[in-house]
Amino acid sequence: MQQQSESSSAGRLIRHFRNTKYMINESRAFFDAAHAAGIMAVHGRSTIGRAFALGTGSLDSRSRVIDFVRCSYLGLDNHPAIVAAAIEAIQAHWSLHWSCARTRLNFDLLAELEATLSDMFSARVLAFSTVMLANLGAMPLLASGQLTGGCKPVVVFDRIAHVSLAYHKPVVADETQVETIAHNDIDALERLCRKHPLVVYVCDGVYSMGGTSPIKELRQLQDRYGLFLYVDDAHGISLFGRQGEGFARSQFPQVLGDRTIIAASLGKGFGASGGILMLGTADQEDLFRRYSIPYAFSVAPNLAAVGAALGSCKIHRSVELSERQMRLAQRISIFDSLVATAEQGNSLPIRMISIGSEAKAIAIVGELLNAGLYTSVTFFPTVARGRAGIRVCITADHEVDDIERLCDCILEKVPDATAKPTPLASVPP
Amino acid sequence: MQQQSESSSAGRLIRHFRNTKYMINESRAFFDAAHAAGIMAVHGRSTIGRAFALGTGSLDSRSRVIDFVRCSYLGLDNHPAIVAAAIEAIQAHWSLHWSCARTRLNFDLLAELEATLSDMFSARVLAFSTVMLANLGAMPLLASGQLTGGCKPVVVFDRIAHVSLAYHKPVVADETQVETIAHNDIDALERLCRKHPLVVYVCDGVYSMGGTSPIKELRQLQDRYGLFLYVDDAHGISLFGRQGEGFARSQFPQVLGDRTIIAASLGKGFGASGGILMLGTADQEDLFRRYSIPYAFSVAPNLAAVGAALGSCKIHRSVELSERQMRLAQRISIFDSLVATAEQGNSLPIRMISIGSEAKAIAIVGELLNAGLYTSVTFFPTVARGRAGIRVCITADHEVDDIERLCDCILEKVPDATAKPTPLASVPP
Repeated sequence: MQQQSESSSAGRLIRHFRNTKYMINESRAFFDAAHAAGIMAVHGRSTIGRAFALGTGSLDSRSRVIDFVRCSYLGLDNHPAIVAAAIEAIQAHWSLHWSCARTRLNFDLLAELEATLSDMFSARVLAFSTVMLANLGAMPLLASGQLTGGCKPVVVFDRIAHVSLAYHKPVVADETQVETIAHNDIDALERLCRKHPLVVYVCDGVYSMGGTSPIKELRQLQDRYGLFLYVDDAHGISLFGRQGEGFARSQFPQVLGDRTIIAASLGKGFGASGGILMLGTADQEDLFRRYSIPYAFSVAPNLAAVGAALGSCKIHRSVELSERQMRLAQRISIFDSLVATAEQGNSLPIRMISIGSEAKAIAIVGELLNAGLYTSVTFFPTVARGRAGIRVCITADHEVDDIERLCDCILEKVPDATAKPTPLASVPP
Repeated sequence: MQQQSESSSAGRLIRHFRNTKYMINESRAFFDAAHAAGIMAVHGRSTIGRAFALGTGSLDSRSRVIDFVRCSYLGLDNHPAIVAAAIEAIQAHWSLHWSCARTRLNFDLLAELEATLSDMFSARVLAFSTVMLANLGAMPLLASGQLTGGCKPVVVFDRIAHVSLAYHKPVVADETQVETIAHNDIDALERLCRKHPLVVYVCDGVYSMGGTSPIKELRQLQDRYGLFLYVDDAHGISLFGRQGEGFARSQFPQVLGDRTIIAASLGKGFGASGGILMLGTADQEDLFRRYSIPYAFSVAPNLAAVGAALGSCKIHRSVELSERQMRLAQRISIFDSLVATAEQGNSLPIRMISIGSEAKAIAIVGELLNAGLYTSVTFFPTVARGRAGIRVCITADHEVDDIERLCDCILEKVPDATAKPTPLASVPP
């Protein structure tokens, strides 16, 4: 949601970051229509690969659907080694969860997980039960100035930074100045760096609706002005880097330093459950281990999540990771060779098919589901009004046949989306 | 943290809800001392009952410690039936977590869990991965007025409402008026109800540092003024009620109605992992299932949490629940018969031993740990400065010997805390 301004009765400019009432009023009809069409809040049971058994009740009576919704980009979320490691962890402790702050008592396996991830990602890694909570814990610390030498920075958000970041703008603004700039507007960010002695920039690494942050340009601003970067790379982890360090981390030097924090998911590409922060210094680690709010309350990842993540670490350190990264790249290329999107040719697994009308997008996603293909309808507030579309998550575990069938079905409904052959969209050898 | 006010350069009163820098500066030395003393961020492995193996590495070399920190009040967090149900759920889906919004795709078992809990608690129950996220999702909806007939309410917080509620004050204040009243100040709340047509009150059911909300008096204000209540009963769930509906829910009528939302934990007393909201109407449920932020992103409870909660539901619906509730009451009485606290005689499992000096509290908790008894040191910002103490969580699974030994050790260090025999503190037959 965009920031709005109004004059208060006292004549002073008050800025509003959120307008929940407006957002609900403007989108409720779309949500209701999508639910009525049976394409939202779907239930199912995981089977093999990217298929799931639709609905609840007896498995025999359920239809088999190929899923293009969940963000398990490397197809790891039902990997036997990860599932087995989750079970082993529970059995080793004969417990699932300890209800107490991480400042008090922690499962020993959680220490092992943090040490393993720290080694893999050349950073000081802290684990959380979700990325959303990792971000919640970080925002007040950024605002306090404790990460920038004791001086409160101006905190700048990318306009389309994920809601799990943007939610906290009023909390940050309660403690320091907050600015919002246009998406990836490096010039605007540089102007703010020139104007203010300390600037923090908050953005996604890979954006959940497509596209990325210009990490190289951000690093230049960091070198030039000491810009502090907070990058949520939930969607970029595991897809890039020799050990899956992700879109953002793989573009920073071996030593992360004291001006960069990267958040990432242990779900999504990583295939387990939970979230992490990659920190650069011992001081930062001490600060988070004392004052990150979720860290100080009972929201550690549960043991199944810890075990699954340890299982996934083994895969990330084996040749299987690059094989899966490559399989994903091939499948993305196959999709791109058939269906044209704004994302065509990039190496990310998210594709957005523009439809325009919300009603039409809902209808098409319903028809795809009837054909056994589950995709996400996207509409306001996720995208602008009248710019509804279909979001497709491609994974390394999709059968090539399933991708081709999805593309055929999409093109039947949206013939304009037929891809023109380009060198970029050809399948790599 | 208390709300602070200051005049802006424009002369208008700006209210600050958070002051992270101040809080850190005032408490950092205590945190550092407690970590140096080895009594914070402890690691361990669950063994049997309330014992755990301290540290990491080989199990043989670790000492056995009795834990009085974690909030598993009924001793369920390593109950064989709950642990087995967690494993069964993972095996049934051969997955742990689906990385996608609950508005998209859900495990069928999650639907079963929500239906079971709804039936047990006579409410429309939505499950979340943590109570903290359940609260995060609710706060903007409260502020928007969508839960109060489309009109924005004044949202009133109890001064010591849990940080997982208080954190969101600036977010709520960005959309509507926020007030903070003294702890349990019913008169102040009634004055606000008289002054404003729509008031929401946000409080804990059972406070994590002792004490409760006056639910009866709050219900009277609800009847008189239409007050909307949002009660976080994370610490009250399972301890009260025939099916463990908790401190708050058990004091409301069978039909929850359209003016009460209760948040609760599936960890703590419940013994699994995750959080829930108990809603009263279909409209509320539709609203949350569309617009609660964590619901709309990839933060569903993972399958191990869902399975464990389903296992705990079976215990909650059996005679074992009341047996455990009774065992807990007996153990609380034993503690109260030996050690005097402000909580003496109440039926809650949290006891706070006042020490005063932070250094002394840290030293005593360190000595207790050396004696094989792990308790929580509490200091600012959890309690006021100079009012440090020791927090003890009593559970149904503590051996009576262990409670007596803890009391003896506490009284050795704090002889003033010796209980005077009173009828309230006697062990029930």
